[in-house]
Amino acid sequence: MAEGFRGVFPYLVSPIDARGAVKAEVLAKLCEDLVAAGVHGLTALGSTGEFAYLSREQRRRVVEVVVAAAKGRVPVVAGVASTTIADAVSQARDYRAIGVDGILAILEAYFPIGDDGVFDYFRAIAESVPLPIVLYTNPNFQRSDLSLPAIERLSRVGNIGYIKDASSNTGRLLSILERVEGRMQVFAASAHSPACVMLIGGIGWMAGPACVAPRQSVELYELCRRGDWRAAMERQRPLWRLNQAFAKHNLAACIKGGLTLQGYDVGRPLPPQAPLSGEGIEEVRHALSAIGAL
Amino acid sequence: MAEGFRGVFPYLVSPIDARGAVKAEVLAKLCEDLVAAGVHGLTALGSTGEFAYLSREQRRRVVEVVVAAAKGRVPVVAGVASTTIADAVSQARDYRAIGVDGILAILEAYFPIGDDGVFDYFRAIAESVPLPIVLYTNPNFQRSDLSLPAIERLSRVGNIGYIKDASSNTGRLLSILERVEGRMQVFAASAHSPACVMLIGGIGWMAGPACVAPRQSVELYELCRRGDWRAAMERQRPLWRLNQAFAKHNLAACIKGGLTLQGYDVGRPLPPQAPLSGEGIEEVRHALSAIGAL
Amino acid sequence: MAEGFRGVFPYLVSPIDARGAVKAEVLAKLCEDLVAAGVHGLTALGSTGEFAYLSREQRRRVVEVVVAAAKGRVPVVAGVASTTIADAVSQARDYRAIGVDGILAILEAYFPIGDDGVFDYFRAIAESVPLPIVLYTNPNFQRSDLSLPAIERLSRVGNIGYIKDASSNTGRLLSILERVEGRMQVFAASAHSPACVMLIGGIGWMAGPACVAPRQSVELYELCRRGDWRAAMERQRPLWRLNQAFAKHNLAACIKGGLTLQGYDVGRPLPPQAPLSGEGIEEVRHALSAIGAL
Amino acid sequence: MAEGFRGVFPYLVSPIDARGAVKAEVLAKLCEDLVAAGVHGLTALGSTGEFAYLSREQRRRVVEVVVAAAKGRVPVVAGVASTTIADAVSQARDYRAIGVDGILAILEAYFPIGDDGVFDYFRAIAESVPLPIVLYTNPNFQRSDLSLPAIERLSRVGNIGYIKDASSNTGRLLSILERVEGRMQVFAASAHSPACVMLIGGIGWMAGPACVAPRQSVELYELCRRGDWRAAMERQRPLWRLNQAFAKHNLAACIKGGLTLQGYDVGRPLPPQAPLSGEGIEEVRHALSAIGAL
Repeated sequence: MAEGFRGVFPYLVSPIDARGAVKAEVLAKLCEDLVAAGVHGLTALGSTGEFAYLSREQRRRVVEVVVAAAKGRVPVVAGVASTTIADAVSQARDYRAIGVDGILAILEAYFPIGDDGVFDYFRAIAESVPLPIVLYTNPNFQRSDLSLPAIERLSRVGNIGYIKDASSNTGRLLSILERVEGRMQVFAASAHSPACVMLIGGIGWMAGPACVAPRQSVELYELCRRGDWRAAMERQRPLWRLNQAFAKHNLAACIKGGLTLQGYDVGRPLPPQAPLSGEGIEEVRHALSAIGAL
Repeated sequence: MAEGFRGVFPYLVSPIDARGAVKAEVLAKLCEDLVAAGVHGLTALGSTGEFAYLSREQRRRVVEVVVAAAKGRVPVVAGVASTTIADAVSQARDYRAIGVDGILAILEAYFPIGDDGVFDYFRAIAESVPLPIVLYTNPNFQRSDLSLPAIERLSRVGNIGYIKDASSNTGRLLSILERVEGRMQVFAASAHSPACVMLIGGIGWMAGPACVAPRQSVELYELCRRGDWRAAMERQRPLWRLNQAFAKHNLAACIKGGLTLQGYDVGRPLPPQAPLSGEGIEEVRHALSAIGAL
Repeated sequence: MAEGFRGVFPYLVSPIDARGAVKAEVLAKLCEDLVAAGVHGLTALGSTGEFAYLSREQRRRVVEVVVAAAKGRVPVVAGVASTTIADAVSQARDYRAIGVDGILAILEAYFPIGDDGVFDYFRAIAESVPLPIVLYTNPNFQRSDLSLPAIERLSRVGNIGYIKDASSNTGRLLSILERVEGRMQVFAASAHSPACVMLIGGIGWMAGPACVAPRQSVELYELCRRGDWRAAMERQRPLWRLNQAFAKHNLAACIKGGLTLQGYDVGRPLPPQAPLSGEGIEEVRHALSAIGAL
Repeated sequence: MAEGFRGVFPYLVSPIDARGAVKAEVLAKLCEDLVAAGVHGLTALGSTGEFAYLSREQRRRVVEVVVAAAKGRVPVVAGVASTTIADAVSQARDYRAIGVDGILAILEAYFPIGDDGVFDYFRAIAESVPLPIVLYTNPNFQRSDLSLPAIERLSRVGNIGYIKDASSNTGRLLSILERVEGRMQVFAASAHSPACVMLIGGIGWMAGPACVAPRQSVELYELCRRGDWRAAMERQRPLWRLNQAFAKHNLAACIKGGLTLQGYDVGRPLPPQAPLSGEGIEEVRHALSAIGAL
């Protein structure tokens, strides 16, 4: 996979049964179908994957199942998230041993952390494994953020080659691209319309909705790659309606709800998170039907 | 001007002398040069125009000067901003009598206002004058926001035909466009990269930076209109650097500082706002030079 | 009034009729009754007084009516609020000419202002009139805040002798008192329980609820002054319930609603602010009855 | 310990060595000295105890050391914090088995949680162990908050008897007390001045600063208990200065820094958290000296 990551990397859900075990068959089937639909990679343990709700054991098992299911056909990126450097490094090494192709690095925080601490955290992960690193920042849910100067410093660490910024501020992605001068590539998140991000120089997207609309996402990506922006926007609009339906609810509940409608027995998000409401189910059903994903 | 507003509408500064008088000659010269540079309209009393810092008399005088300078060659849109319906309606009627072609409607608030109050405010302005209305919302500086349902309701008021949303959330613009189904058009603000907004269906932008880079802004607009997105992004990038320089400082101070560098004696923002710092002046000088605007 | 301000200063409402005129008789009657109930001062044009919703003429008229009604029996403090130094100084001089005994100084802001600008604004007001100045900061509704270092600097300006901090952070008042070392006194706001503020060294309170419960407020104040904290807390508790009822709704709507229940024809807050809802009226009625204020 | 919790419960730090092991001797010595100084209880794994930075193993070990050190002389309360019900219940049962006397229940969140989920979470913890439960909410650092209606509902769960609210809004504590009508008692947090909270009906405080000033804290508590408010405020003022010094820095870094100055080899907070800066050390040294705690 020397050519690097690009394209559509669905954010996988983490199906967990009532006793706390990962539902390996359900997850493997989902991975298989996504690869068959043409996605360019698989991302385990992102926000949609409820990393913040899983134990170390559950997280590890999710990664094992996804790596086994991918069978090397597409790269697997796994989320490493912690409040401490020691724990994050330990997670990264574990996932490397399991066979992932890249790390999505997430900083959790309780007390605020200065730019130096942020830099130390991400650099330590990068130096702990010989794998490409994707920085992930989500100021809506995480108690930390990556400043532009911190991103620039991190872009000079050899294997930190990507960033996924979920700030909903599309202009910030352009600022990042200007600043890192090619040393780092940008993936869009659910908060952005992918066509816009591709126009300004992005290389793809990592997002939960691609889990329930993989084929449509890949088609949109190909149109953007070919520079056929008019056709891309025609595809973008109904996909954005799906995104909007998701934005109104808990993200994990929505994607799990949508996958359940599509026949995957992924269950509900871990309590005390609420499952998708009846009204939410109807909205998701309607949005999926509109794009031919149901 | 039956065909409606579209294109680049610079947000004009409001040059005020030490005694509080509007510097009419400076403002008229700026308007003249902007029209000569090809801008499609002029917007008085936006954020950059320091509407929040001017008395009723100063505001009125700014509008008079701009309308006289435009000489009907391009439409003039004037900002109406208040906390009360009565005052906003009174401003709108004043500016209509002076001869503006449209109203940029802004809701200021001290105590929070519910959606019904927001709707009543904007509808009352729209019903008070037979002019096209541009809704303006800026959640960063204003203590109110326009929810999607409120925008949808307002899009059904006959002469409310435009919205300028300065939320920095480009995806929100796509949501707005989906929701208003053609009854309302979207202008980008400084917080967005114009090329993205044009791609998703916007019709132009109203922003302070166009004051100091009118020719470059018009060129970018024309490339977007022609669908030449590759060339548009080449122009967009250096213009975004200018935007970024502005985003770090008080907006009025920046645009006034940039115009001063270009030879317009527009003075400083009204105290206690600080003028652009020495460091800020150098950043703006550098960004303007890079696009050939100095 | 050489001994300085202390005690209960109700925040007066501003009754305005449908044509925009100040209802002078209603306001004068309210002032008369408050003085008769024993309040120690009257504050015009605070938050409750809807300063942010009134024109310069309406504000001036409110001050005239209150000064005339007070007849020198208690000090009158008037709110000066603006985004610019020039306008604030002009207001302060107007109110001084009308005969107020002190100025409540409020900084409104659209763009953020640094500490130097904040200091310049308040010092300019203080230097413009030979009257005691009360600083007022309300981070909930105003787009500016007074940092502890700015407060310390301002405490060294001769006639800035008081601060009313509406941050809801009672500990911050103790920090302020520690910092100003006696050069400035602290008034509580509605966000604080007055008994706590008196315990830590406050000298009274300026708040809307005292308009509808003047006698009860004065009794609470006297118990605090005597150091009878047990009895004070017994009075504090039901008054706090009144406060809580108000905190759920628009403050001006609540106080105007409560005064209407008490027979003062003060009308509703200026549109688009909503009047108190039916449910809100019942809550206020219940809270007023519980303290014998209806 | 049938009479229930009351008084000063220091928030213990968690000393961890470079290999990640709990420094049991240091922690035991600190507990011993705090008990000798007269504190009324010990709280392990609060914010100051860096619960958010410790592994399950480290947390368990901290609890073991503290329970052993307390030797039943004072009650030990241990923090249970998680994003999921299953994990929280598992922690609570573990700590119960180790021998704690109460649970401090903390809800962590990544995605927002509605009131029903909040209620379910805390009730599940309460039902999992036959121990008194202290609710802990800190809207500054946690991505969830306890609404007044949720607190009221929770106050009806049998063994939920206490709440520690770190909102910095002292008036909110009075609102809580009004609402729970005696079914729940209130502990102050570092964000509040304890004397105020005692005045309005609190029963003590759980806070990090008591770790470095146990004797002074106990003296302040006793003065409040006796209703000697004048003397209490004299003690409160210098203790508040200590609090202010801490509020400027990372809380764990501050308390660990202060304890280091006092001779406890507790080390620094876990990386990437920064240790107390040189300037911070001087501030803490000065504040501790001023109250005779160094």
